[in-house]
Amino acid sequence: MLDFDILEYQERLERTKKSMEKQGIEVLLITDPANMNYLSGYDAWSFYVHQMLVVIIDEPQPIWIGRYMDATGAKSKTWMYDENIMAYPDYYVQSDRYHPMEFVAEILEEIGHGNRVIAVEKEQYYFTAKAYEVLKAKLPNATFKDGTLLVNWVRIHKSDQEIEYMRKAAMIAERSMQAGLQSIHTGSRECDAAASIFFELVKGTEEFGGDYPSIVPMLPTGENTSTPHLTWSDAYFEEGNSVIVELAGCYKRYHCPLARTAFIGQPPEYHHRLASIVAEGMEEVIAKVKPGIYLEELEEAWRKSTRKYGIEKESRLGYSLGLNYPPDWGEHTASIRKGDKTVLQPNMTFHFIPGIWEDHYGLEMSESFRVTETGIELFTNYPRELLVQSPFQLPDGSNGIIS
Amino acid sequence: MLDFDILEYQERLERTKKSMEKQGIEVLLITDPANMNYLSGYDAWSFYVHQMLVVIIDEPQPIWIGRYMDATGAKSKTWMYDENIMAYPDYYVQSDRYHPMEFVAEILEEIGHGNRVIAVEKEQYYFTAKAYEVLKAKLPNATFKDGTLLVNWVRIHKSDQEIEYMRKAAMIAERSMQAGLQSIHTGSRECDAAASIFFELVKGTEEFGGDYPSIVPMLPTGENTSTPHLTWSDAYFEEGNSVIVELAGCYKRYHCPLARTAFIGQPPEYHHRLASIVAEGMEEVIAKVKPGIYLEELEEAWRKSTRKYGIEKESRLGYSLGLNYPPDWGEHTASIRKGDKTVLQPNMTFHFIPGIWEDHYGLEMSESFRVTETGIELFTNYPRELLVQSPFQLPDGSNGIIS
Repeated sequence: MLDFDILEYQERLERTKKSMEKQGIEVLLITDPANMNYLSGYDAWSFYVHQMLVVIIDEPQPIWIGRYMDATGAKSKTWMYDENIMAYPDYYVQSDRYHPMEFVAEILEEIGHGNRVIAVEKEQYYFTAKAYEVLKAKLPNATFKDGTLLVNWVRIHKSDQEIEYMRKAAMIAERSMQAGLQSIHTGSRECDAAASIFFELVKGTEEFGGDYPSIVPMLPTGENTSTPHLTWSDAYFEEGNSVIVELAGCYKRYHCPLARTAFIGQPPEYHHRLASIVAEGMEEVIAKVKPGIYLEELEEAWRKSTRKYGIEKESRLGYSLGLNYPPDWGEHTASIRKGDKTVLQPNMTFHFIPGIWEDHYGLEMSESFRVTETGIELFTNYPRELLVQSPFQLPDGSNGIIS
Repeated sequence: MLDFDILEYQERLERTKKSMEKQGIEVLLITDPANMNYLSGYDAWSFYVHQMLVVIIDEPQPIWIGRYMDATGAKSKTWMYDENIMAYPDYYVQSDRYHPMEFVAEILEEIGHGNRVIAVEKEQYYFTAKAYEVLKAKLPNATFKDGTLLVNWVRIHKSDQEIEYMRKAAMIAERSMQAGLQSIHTGSRECDAAASIFFELVKGTEEFGGDYPSIVPMLPTGENTSTPHLTWSDAYFEEGNSVIVELAGCYKRYHCPLARTAFIGQPPEYHHRLASIVAEGMEEVIAKVKPGIYLEELEEAWRKSTRKYGIEKESRLGYSLGLNYPPDWGEHTASIRKGDKTVLQPNMTFHFIPGIWEDHYGLEMSESFRVTETGIELFTNYPRELLVQSPFQLPDGSNGIIS
């Protein structure tokens, strides 16, 4: 039932404890669902209520704390003993009288850790300002530290098994992109294309099924290509529309994102030109990737390449990537941008997405990659160009790409 | 481009300000994406970075603050003037040196509100413990209050237009349930059924498209029916499996959830019996719904009905429902449970989901409903019974329900 060998979970835990030791942390309260999964195997859509994994520096197993109805799932999906699964009653859920962190504080006191150095993930979606206030009030003898990203930084080094999962996610990403592009023509609505993409993402292949991506497919169309995070509407596609397709295949919560830009009909020359500038910049970056360099050197390569065409990019070029849950598939650690001194090492993985968003038009092309012993492995294999689409669905249903 | 008349947004803002006044709040910092959408119209998958809507008691329009690349979307998707859209540069994003709340604090100081009574949503997914720490440090002259759920309680009263959107979501929910059940047979995998459901959810109808639901379809199968929040696997369905299907249709971010339990092949008598006990309890509750009663009276009706069969339910029976974003479609205000003194009023809407999770088996049937002037309107119309499925796909593709 576990997605990884139990030894892999234990090795992850050891690396986490080493980092805790270095930072003087005795008890780490983990509320990021990806970090919980990474260390315990727990995978469920229960992160909309409070839950956590408690890692105690001198205990061999973490403790899972969550809602009563989710404890059965925690027992079956984690490698820990059943007595390390602890559940709070339902009256704590979304209540104006009780808070689950009161329950957590009581447990920590009971098992003798109420007076230790406790770290919480302060900058994390599922750890609220209120949760922290309650913990501090109920554990007056604890010393609190910030444990944000501690486990995320452990996650940045992927195992071969994790890479294998990302390769499967990549296969799903390619198929989903193809299905989406087939649905982009004037007889189809944005929601129809999004539906086709979702179908492939979740179905996966004959050999293995897909998982839900942490971000829904983005499909900004026409003027909306100038803004990256609008989701689909039910408008029909029109000849002359640009359409950005940004999606991620997902396998056992491991992601492989892929973005491309399509044009319905014959694009203005400028669109082709922008696409080839971006493609050239991407080539320069891809050629540069190898162990030992700083991440910011990739940004520098991009800047050098595109500056000569007058392209200035305000936002970062990408980020570390892997296991995640909504609302984000990025790991929030290393970013491909100026000033990032992360040194590239084998089995680090990134989404490289140099999106260009102008006032009335935008273009996205992206690659997800792994750093190898000597260079780079691209996870997907998809033409890196503006994808010119026939406006009409062809009789053989092939539609799709005409150039 | 707006989903509601501008007057409706302004009326919502007025009701929000009245509640602020009552609670002595001068400036409300809204970070819940549903609350942001409710008051401004803003709808994008950008909530994975910090963003907010600032409501100032003596200003006619809210201020949107978010990431630079999302500002174009905010200008096009909200009713406010462009100068009320303020964006922070990308170096604030997921940085270890800068925090977007520093930018927010600077703006509040600059426009003269740094020393007022400021409320934040302390118990909300997208407002982190760190965000609150930064705000408090950077606004030493402000008085901070808790504004959690202030706008959510305004949202509990739906307009007729909102109800219309929920009815559309209901049509999508019914179709998606049907598509899912058609895919539940021994030739199909859990991921195939989930893919069929997702396809219908996103495609919607010929007349209007679907939106992504705030929770993915749940599909616990076999022993996993004993735990409610596990998502699908790629295992093939087997004769003798129970399958719980919990999904929500979504239209313009308004949800209509629907849950049913299917059985592949001939179910043990006990499963039928449990389903009819639950159905009887649901009938009692449905008969009771009308304006003027306390929400907890619904729980009492359920308890009276099911106690005589020895059924005890640990968790709440449902919750207020409507507009939302991942990770939850519930509104976090009123719950159908003992002690909830919310008085039912017309156009309140709820998801009534009396799930039963036993050690090795679980059963879910649910109804989403609206309180009317005199009683209840059920949003969906789906048989309230254990759905017995043929194990095999029939030659006409109809499979699905055999009893």
